[in-house]
Amino acid sequence: MSLTDKTKPTDVSLNTDLYELTMAQGFWESGMVDAQANFNAFFRDNPFGGGFAIACGIGQVPELVENFRFDDEDIAYLSSLKAPGGGAMFKQGFLDYLRDFRMHVDVWAIPEGDIAFPREPMIRVQGPVIDCQLLETALLNLVNFQTLVATKAARVVRAAEGRPVSDFGLRRAQGPDGGLAVARASYIAGCSSTSNILAGKLYGIPVFGTHAHSWVMAFPTELDAFRAFAKSSPKNCCLLLDTYDVYQGIENAITVAKEMEAEGERLSAIRIDSGDLAKLSKAARKAFDEAGLPYIKISVSNDLDEYLVQSLLAQGAPIDSFGVGTKLATCDPQPSLGGVYKLSAIRTQFDEDWDPVMKISEQGYKRTIPGIQHIKRFYDIDDCPTGDMIIDDSVSEGESNVIQDILDAYSTMALPGTPRELMQHIVHDGVRTCEPPSITESRDRCRYALMHLDPTIRRFLNPQTYPVGLELGLAKFRGKLAQEERSGSGRN
Amino acid sequence: MSLTDKTKPTDVSLNTDLYELTMAQGFWESGMVDAQANFNAFFRDNPFGGGFAIACGIGQVPELVENFRFDDEDIAYLSSLKAPGGGAMFKQGFLDYLRDFRMHVDVWAIPEGDIAFPREPMIRVQGPVIDCQLLETALLNLVNFQTLVATKAARVVRAAEGRPVSDFGLRRAQGPDGGLAVARASYIAGCSSTSNILAGKLYGIPVFGTHAHSWVMAFPTELDAFRAFAKSSPKNCCLLLDTYDVYQGIENAITVAKEMEAEGERLSAIRIDSGDLAKLSKAARKAFDEAGLPYIKISVSNDLDEYLVQSLLAQGAPIDSFGVGTKLATCDPQPSLGGVYKLSAIRTQFDEDWDPVMKISEQGYKRTIPGIQHIKRFYDIDDCPTGDMIIDDSVSEGESNVIQDILDAYSTMALPGTPRELMQHIVHDGVRTCEPPSITESRDRCRYALMHLDPTIRRFLNPQTYPVGLELGLAKFRGKLAQEERSGSGRN
Repeated sequence: MSLTDKTKPTDVSLNTDLYELTMAQGFWESGMVDAQANFNAFFRDNPFGGGFAIACGIGQVPELVENFRFDDEDIAYLSSLKAPGGGAMFKQGFLDYLRDFRMHVDVWAIPEGDIAFPREPMIRVQGPVIDCQLLETALLNLVNFQTLVATKAARVVRAAEGRPVSDFGLRRAQGPDGGLAVARASYIAGCSSTSNILAGKLYGIPVFGTHAHSWVMAFPTELDAFRAFAKSSPKNCCLLLDTYDVYQGIENAITVAKEMEAEGERLSAIRIDSGDLAKLSKAARKAFDEAGLPYIKISVSNDLDEYLVQSLLAQGAPIDSFGVGTKLATCDPQPSLGGVYKLSAIRTQFDEDWDPVMKISEQGYKRTIPGIQHIKRFYDIDDCPTGDMIIDDSVSEGESNVIQDILDAYSTMALPGTPRELMQHIVHDGVRTCEPPSITESRDRCRYALMHLDPTIRRFLNPQTYPVGLELGLAKFRGKLAQEERSGSGRN
Repeated sequence: MSLTDKTKPTDVSLNTDLYELTMAQGFWESGMVDAQANFNAFFRDNPFGGGFAIACGIGQVPELVENFRFDDEDIAYLSSLKAPGGGAMFKQGFLDYLRDFRMHVDVWAIPEGDIAFPREPMIRVQGPVIDCQLLETALLNLVNFQTLVATKAARVVRAAEGRPVSDFGLRRAQGPDGGLAVARASYIAGCSSTSNILAGKLYGIPVFGTHAHSWVMAFPTELDAFRAFAKSSPKNCCLLLDTYDVYQGIENAITVAKEMEAEGERLSAIRIDSGDLAKLSKAARKAFDEAGLPYIKISVSNDLDEYLVQSLLAQGAPIDSFGVGTKLATCDPQPSLGGVYKLSAIRTQFDEDWDPVMKISEQGYKRTIPGIQHIKRFYDIDDCPTGDMIIDDSVSEGESNVIQDILDAYSTMALPGTPRELMQHIVHDGVRTCEPPSITESRDRCRYALMHLDPTIRRFLNPQTYPVGLELGLAKFRGKLAQEERSGSGRN
């Protein structure tokens, strides 16, 4: 996306839904240019039936905010749009306003790479209501998918139990940005490398690759192909064995490995990309060991996900590394996080105080959390998180460690340990407060956070629910507000 | 992506898997710079359990080929890469070769918007083996997802039975490119508009939007919010009713509609985004009709897909248009087409004839089709396709209408009707042969093709299998080659 050197900054602002601009014009016309708003970006359920998500994409938010502006070409396009009922969709005065537009928001966020849980604000945006509204789509487009794919990658990496996992997903991603997002987020979440060269160039992620079946088929015999590859890439030689027959491929790899030894080189690895990977990897390991080639590593690929990786290792498959493509890049079987961005408080120029708001719905689980929120994450003595408390200082009952379940007004619990503020202030008045974390910093944070997350929450099947709740003052206020809104169809 | 005006052409070439470049270097070093290759891009199964796919992304292939080059920055990055075993990953001579690299391929493809079926070549690339190999990842990254999402969109549009369907998927897509790909492909497949403004600007797709819940929550009451929106956008006024209580929202919409009438305006539509859409849309229709406002249209959204749309209409829900986001943009529940790109023939500088090749595998369904193929699609007297024949002229038995099943060597059938060549020659020696079709032309072709596809093949549940098979000479040749390769682990 724009957030690489490859794009003109201008594209950031039109990478949005039409209604953001229609609403912006509405606010502009309704005398609300100076109204302040607070929006929260959050998701409602952990993806993949798991117990957590990895906050990702955050590191690119400051750049998005700073580059958000409309150039002449954008304005010309917007001025060309007609309303369905006739006339121009956008008024000249509003377009002039957009021409000079700069974002003046403040942004707080869970640090990139840290753990995020359902319904708590992952990102909080505060500032002029127009600015906040205009940021919605681009922000969600940036963090929804990266958070989802980072979470998927963390699961696959965990299943691999320390063995390297490489992202092979570019060809199944949604265009170049999709591929870059997959590579970036999965590296942050623990993948060791990517096949995507552009991601290597732009983000400094280690790149990895072997060869394709076409390489083998381009030569008269598989042995010819293996020899040619070993000659061309002796220091980076991983042979793909399943073009014709894996057992013959193993023999050919042994022949080439011995020839390489004679030249003072070593065949570093082989890859198997089809068939029964457990059976074939065992056969390969046995053959290589018997041939005195114990150093040849075994890599596998072919529609892998966390469950297949887990199953292969449970079968004792002697696999040294995994290439994971399609199911990582598409986050199969749950390709969307469903992250949303909801108004939680508004303050017009005539008000001194924030007016907290919430969305009600026939579907109770779509009910939002009102107010200006921040999060305290409690940690035990080993720095392991014990629960998150969502707080609105203006209605807080003060120091407490008791939270109320967001979905159940009768369920409360006390969080053990010591609280720390979770969200960081990353943008002030439209400008980054500091340099965003490097991808390596985000990766380190993620590793640390996952390591300290209770195993019962990390597990794939029926994970324990990590406690996230409302500080009691906020809980009471929310209950009251829901009743008022429901009866009045509005805030007052 | 690159294929808009927003990107420097250089990004095209590094938007690839490392192994493409490793192999390219290998071919370069193995004296195969002048070897010619033929690759086919195809998919193995129709997505979504359906009976067809829409070929999409093809219209952007010529630009991809023409812009494929490496600039100094790319070369500098590649020269910085180290091989795992030590030393530079790429040799200076090869990097010099890349510096002057231009694609010299020829490309044939099923026209964008037309129907494609499993295993037949959707795109055929022929030219120097290095060029063909380097194109693989970027080509798949371009056409895999667009073909998938076009197919999904065609299904949703069909379910809507003529009612407009708008793409709302940007916020759940994989970054800006993903959003653009969704908008472009779904418009080609029959969607009437998109919420994505950048797609509107770049591709000329009609843009559509209403307002969000945040608009309502930003005002003291829902009625205030509706009035403000009506005042700001009287010619483009669609009110969202489900922020607090839909029934109260209906009453408020009626109030505002009457006020608009007094001003000589009309409330064009309302939208419902949660709850029981069948029940609520009926309640809204009834209330509007009773209030003498039969012209107010009803639009719905909320995790819609083809099955939900179908179910709503089957229940008699009086819905006029659909906004489809998440499940369109992520192609839920099948987020990947699994499209591949396989070598099917090779010719070294010492050969006069092509050497057809095929990939065998433990998994029989991964067996490819060898040779230089083209497709004849047979049409009946009403221009409805009756079946596709895959032909390699060099082994063809001549005029015939009999095909053999690709997966079953014993099953043959005769195709009725008259054959026409399906694939078009879109790139010659690296340069487009003509201007790619406009997005409108692709859309018209798609509409025509779908209209003429047998309803038993278009249906969602257990569709009939459209006949695609091998011309008998190719079928025999393929059987022979499979046996030779299996026994010899190579082509000869």
